[in-house]
Amino acid sequence: YLIKTSPVHFDMNNHGSTGIFITPQGIQENKPYVIINGAIENDNNSPLPVIVRHRITSAEGTLITEEQQKLNLKPLSKTSFKLSSKILRNIQLWSPDEPNLYYVTSLLYDEKNQLLDEIRNPLGFRYFSIHKDKGFSLNGKHCFIKGMGRSQDYDHMGYAIPDEIQINDVRMMKEMGVNFLRSHYPQDPVVWNECDKLGIMMTGRIPLFDKIAYTRAFAENTKQMMREMILQNYNHPCVIMWEYMNEIFGGMDWYWPKPQDPEKMKKEKEEVYKLAVELEKMTRSLDPYRLTEQVFHTDPNPQWYKEAGLTSVSMINGWNIYFGWYHGNLQLVGKAIDEFHSYNPNLPYIISEYGAGSDNRIHTETPTVFDFSQEYMDMFHKVYLSEVAKRPWISGMCIWTWCDFQVDSRRDVMPHINNKGMVTADRKPKDVYYLYKARWNPSPMIYIAGKNWTERKAITQGEKTITKKVTVYSNLKEIELLINGTSLGKKKITDYEAVYEVPFREGQNLLLARDINSDLSDAALITYDFQPLMLDASCRELCINVGQSRTFFFDPLTRNQWLPDQTYRQGSWGHVNGNYYRVWNEMKAWQGIREGVDNNILNTSIDPVFQTFLVGVTEYRIDVPAGEYVVELYFTEPFSRERRLKPEEQTGADVNGDRIFNVLINQVPVLKNLNLAGQYGEQYAVIEKFETKTTTGGIVINLLPVKGEPVLSGIRIMKK
Amino acid sequence: YLIKTSPVHFDMNNHGSTGIFITPQGIQENKPYVIINGAIENDNNSPLPVIVRHRITSAEGTLITEEQQKLNLKPLSKTSFKLSSKILRNIQLWSPDEPNLYYVTSLLYDEKNQLLDEIRNPLGFRYFSIHKDKGFSLNGKHCFIKGMGRSQDYDHMGYAIPDEIQINDVRMMKEMGVNFLRSHYPQDPVVWNECDKLGIMMTGRIPLFDKIAYTRAFAENTKQMMREMILQNYNHPCVIMWEYMNEIFGGMDWYWPKPQDPEKMKKEKEEVYKLAVELEKMTRSLDPYRLTEQVFHTDPNPQWYKEAGLTSVSMINGWNIYFGWYHGNLQLVGKAIDEFHSYNPNLPYIISEYGAGSDNRIHTETPTVFDFSQEYMDMFHKVYLSEVAKRPWISGMCIWTWCDFQVDSRRDVMPHINNKGMVTADRKPKDVYYLYKARWNPSPMIYIAGKNWTERKAITQGEKTITKKVTVYSNLKEIELLINGTSLGKKKITDYEAVYEVPFREGQNLLLARDINSDLSDAALITYDFQPLMLDASCRELCINVGQSRTFFFDPLTRNQWLPDQTYRQGSWGHVNGNYYRVWNEMKAWQGIREGVDNNILNTSIDPVFQTFLVGVTEYRIDVPAGEYVVELYFTEPFSRERRLKPEEQTGADVNGDRIFNVLINQVPVLKNLNLAGQYGEQYAVIEKFETKTTTGGIVINLLPVKGEPVLSGIRIMKK
Repeated sequence: YLIKTSPVHFDMNNHGSTGIFITPQGIQENKPYVIINGAIENDNNSPLPVIVRHRITSAEGTLITEEQQKLNLKPLSKTSFKLSSKILRNIQLWSPDEPNLYYVTSLLYDEKNQLLDEIRNPLGFRYFSIHKDKGFSLNGKHCFIKGMGRSQDYDHMGYAIPDEIQINDVRMMKEMGVNFLRSHYPQDPVVWNECDKLGIMMTGRIPLFDKIAYTRAFAENTKQMMREMILQNYNHPCVIMWEYMNEIFGGMDWYWPKPQDPEKMKKEKEEVYKLAVELEKMTRSLDPYRLTEQVFHTDPNPQWYKEAGLTSVSMINGWNIYFGWYHGNLQLVGKAIDEFHSYNPNLPYIISEYGAGSDNRIHTETPTVFDFSQEYMDMFHKVYLSEVAKRPWISGMCIWTWCDFQVDSRRDVMPHINNKGMVTADRKPKDVYYLYKARWNPSPMIYIAGKNWTERKAITQGEKTITKKVTVYSNLKEIELLINGTSLGKKKITDYEAVYEVPFREGQNLLLARDINSDLSDAALITYDFQPLMLDASCRELCINVGQSRTFFFDPLTRNQWLPDQTYRQGSWGHVNGNYYRVWNEMKAWQGIREGVDNNILNTSIDPVFQTFLVGVTEYRIDVPAGEYVVELYFTEPFSRERRLKPEEQTGADVNGDRIFNVLINQVPVLKNLNLAGQYGEQYAVIEKFETKTTTGGIVINLLPVKGEPVLSGIRIMKK
Repeated sequence: YLIKTSPVHFDMNNHGSTGIFITPQGIQENKPYVIINGAIENDNNSPLPVIVRHRITSAEGTLITEEQQKLNLKPLSKTSFKLSSKILRNIQLWSPDEPNLYYVTSLLYDEKNQLLDEIRNPLGFRYFSIHKDKGFSLNGKHCFIKGMGRSQDYDHMGYAIPDEIQINDVRMMKEMGVNFLRSHYPQDPVVWNECDKLGIMMTGRIPLFDKIAYTRAFAENTKQMMREMILQNYNHPCVIMWEYMNEIFGGMDWYWPKPQDPEKMKKEKEEVYKLAVELEKMTRSLDPYRLTEQVFHTDPNPQWYKEAGLTSVSMINGWNIYFGWYHGNLQLVGKAIDEFHSYNPNLPYIISEYGAGSDNRIHTETPTVFDFSQEYMDMFHKVYLSEVAKRPWISGMCIWTWCDFQVDSRRDVMPHINNKGMVTADRKPKDVYYLYKARWNPSPMIYIAGKNWTERKAITQGEKTITKKVTVYSNLKEIELLINGTSLGKKKITDYEAVYEVPFREGQNLLLARDINSDLSDAALITYDFQPLMLDASCRELCINVGQSRTFFFDPLTRNQWLPDQTYRQGSWGHVNGNYYRVWNEMKAWQGIREGVDNNILNTSIDPVFQTFLVGVTEYRIDVPAGEYVVELYFTEPFSRERRLKPEEQTGADVNGDRIFNVLINQVPVLKNLNLAGQYGEQYAVIEKFETKTTTGGIVINLLPVKGEPVLSGIRIMKK
């Protein structure tokens, strides 16, 4: 932007602010008025008498009042002004439910009534407070903070996104029922504006996290960011809070995974505390009308925040809690909330982050921690909602996060993506979006969960239908579910959902969920492919995600349906031996079954197929009728050499980190001395395709070790 | 592929073929047997007695018969063999309805019964003929050719696509009811195999089109391609036809747009004829069991094909007909079919290509030629289906084309993409896919057309609902349509569709279409945004696709809904003056309203907004209530300088090709001497954003010419 002004204009040199600061007062007493502070710059070499006029209007343009002031500007100088308005009549309060917005248009005139400058600022009237036991209240009423964290990037676009996407995000959050926005940095200006308009409260935050430098320059830079953010956004009624530090001990690379250095730790705590106190003091002095918050984390050690004194600095303590994801399991969530609360029960408490990742390609009927299924994500969020509901002293909860967003260092199911979004990186809502909408947005709604799992495969044995659970999210009293026109009965909604046992047929199924009392409804088209236990003429192929015990993976590109692995039994298929590689087996704190590795597998887009694998598998059997088949074997060396050299990692490599094996299909050698790391490099996808013939039926794949133990990530079999 | 063989093996040096050629015989006489021709190479320096054994099995592996032959191989030589099987019992014929497939496994043994080589070839038993009046018949029954053209590329992947995508394509075509595949080059081997398995007939074709070189080398290269294709694919039962030339006069760059050079034309005709005769002769001699086809086109002059003698060379004449798209209008389709037929009524006739483009972002209630709406595409295809149905002598019709595919030179709504696909480049079916499925696949089906137009905007004046036409495609007798649970009545299906007047409400609507007699149904979720005539607090914004008279454009990225332009009337919005730029206004042969330019507009993904524009617009009015607004103006210089210098192009540029204008919003100058070509370059998207305030209501945009006439492509207005 290039801004052209008259030589006499409102202050342009105050940290990028509009130069005008509006403070609504007297709201609680029902005698609302505003205090307007500001400054005018006179770049002329001569003095000038001016008139400053402030017009307060409603969002629709109705004039509420006009106040004015005469000032005598000195040459080449800045002149401050301050003005209190009269008490305003018929003011409507601003709240998420009724975001009544006003504007203050400040006009600067010379003696001849010539307009010199004009600035419009938003204005909203609301009062709020927060209490350690009673939580947050807005305009005198309790208001639970339904919060959302947000990164402002978009699929394949990075941060350079059009305003429309920013605005659409706020609109979609509003629709979901969110009333509070948080992020890791000050959001784009259009986001603050849209939050004013739609009634989403906000905590403004600077990007200070993970660690600090122990220098004055760092501290000053931090304060400068904070000052700019506050002054630029002071007038937004959406802002109720300022926040500075997030997970500030989280990035101590000198600590992880090495043991603690007590001296260094002491110094770290002192320095962080000092900076926090400084930031807190400055924030309160710049804006005494907002709350302040700091945000803490479980890693590496939550006690440090208390020991450092940080839990007594801000007005609110926020805790980022990832039990059931990065730590522990979902049974520990309540305990964790309470433990962190005990660090300072005298301050209001917010769960400032919590979240679990999901990849729309992954689904399961048996969700488990870190499986990246949509189903586990929903289970995770329900537990947090339920634990919070039991604790009325919690002021609010802030979902991490709005959208799947880009993090270069991540190596999960979609490398470089953090999948904890309510919506995908291209803003397609996941089921969890509607899980919250049912709870947080009172508008009547029905949503059939799993409706974006449109293409499914089920192993069957000649049944005409197969029965699967379907959950409907709703905030209605009672609904009815129909499959292909047949009612499955009415059900009362309990805890915002109704669960049905649904008989699906092969091919397309139409699910229809409808309200008993209105014309509200939802529909889902779900196609089932019935896979017989043995590959037969009716099925195109069998894709086995070897080493993955529970999840279904659908590849939208090839339309391959990858089934979870199983132990061999006659008349079916599975591994005869070998172990699911489970990175969390040995780490007691991380209960769950995180299978496979979190590496970016190169040369493929179906990382989850390659990331999970069996170690030490020497025989895999697939019972098929006699005939000719195409067999594809999916391999990768999942581990770095460094890791392969550590016996405790149980990578199956030999003492030299080598892994070499031969492969035979029905006794015919097809790969000799396969050395994945040597021939292709580590974490590189390799697909080997063979043809085989069986006259007696059955395909046996043998992987015979030469050095270390064989690994196998996937098998795809088709009739030739 | 690297193929390892024994020194004694089936012929590996015959044009990439399997070295074995299987000809089913006696089918029509119900005495089926096969003739097997082949050769064996002995790379040893010594003679060898061998046994060749051919096992004929069903697809399930049941042995039908085994034939064998003893041969004495000379050293370092190739030995041919030929064998007729006994008459085979219980043979099931191959057809699209029942693609009964057999395999011939040829085994080569030495004297000690040691297996030396093994090759499997597909085999199918069917007989067919084609007749100028009676059309195509298969296994003694009339069989209308329901054909599909295909390019084998995929969204953002080019031609290097996995087998799965190739196979999925064939499966999706089969589901649609297609029984015949055509393309511009021999398809990937997996496609031929899948066509064998699923029962899709095929014409094999070499990439000889647009023009030839008059050289012997060119002719020989062409013949070599043809020979390789035939020999490699001879055994596929799916193949019923071979094809070589396509639109062979279409690429005469010396002709277009210059007038004809009679001498050059004479030579061209002679050379093309000579090559055609040569190819035809070779094809028939290599494979006397298949049909042959050549394909002709309307451009530049369909008579040339006749004059050159080409319409009497092959066994079938194919015509690519694009009336209603590139030429003329839909009323001329029947006439064109008949005219081309008259060039040689003694040969069987196929419509080898016909098609219209559509972009899923574009929809309209008033479809017109070249508007790239899904709705026009459907209208186009219905006309062709109806005209063909009236002419029983037409053997078949071949849709152009399967998927939206990549053509570098294209500059349509999606630059570099030919949008004539039944499915998008990433294989999402368009409505037209189901239009055909209703007609071509006898399985019962229902489909609500327009269901992928999920986000719609309608201009309303306070109505609670707005009534719009909804068409349901079906092959059932009678259906019922419900909106939000309320029945709109039962309707008989006529011509594979039922049309309803549907009252949509604002927000989400659920359409449910169901069979009267079964549990078959389809559902569509369609969201309507009601846009009042004037922008008010209820609407986020107004996006006007200036210079576009009929189509709605939805940008999935920003979710902007671009409405068509209109003439200004009070209380609403529109242009006060200016002309829709219509490239086809002056070209009588191309009736229709092709608006705008077909240029790739750089710096944007919403080309259709920029490609259409008003020329000579000096005033555009948008009636809005008093208030503050953000106004975005979308500009591009749509024409090259070369074109701007031609007065007959009516580009609105001045005699020097210049176009410069000033822009004012509510009398405030906002852009001075805007020179789009000079400042930004031609066909480059420019968005200028301004804020404006109106105290009396209304926004007036003035574009005041300095040189030439102003152009304007789009306006987007929001409340500030």
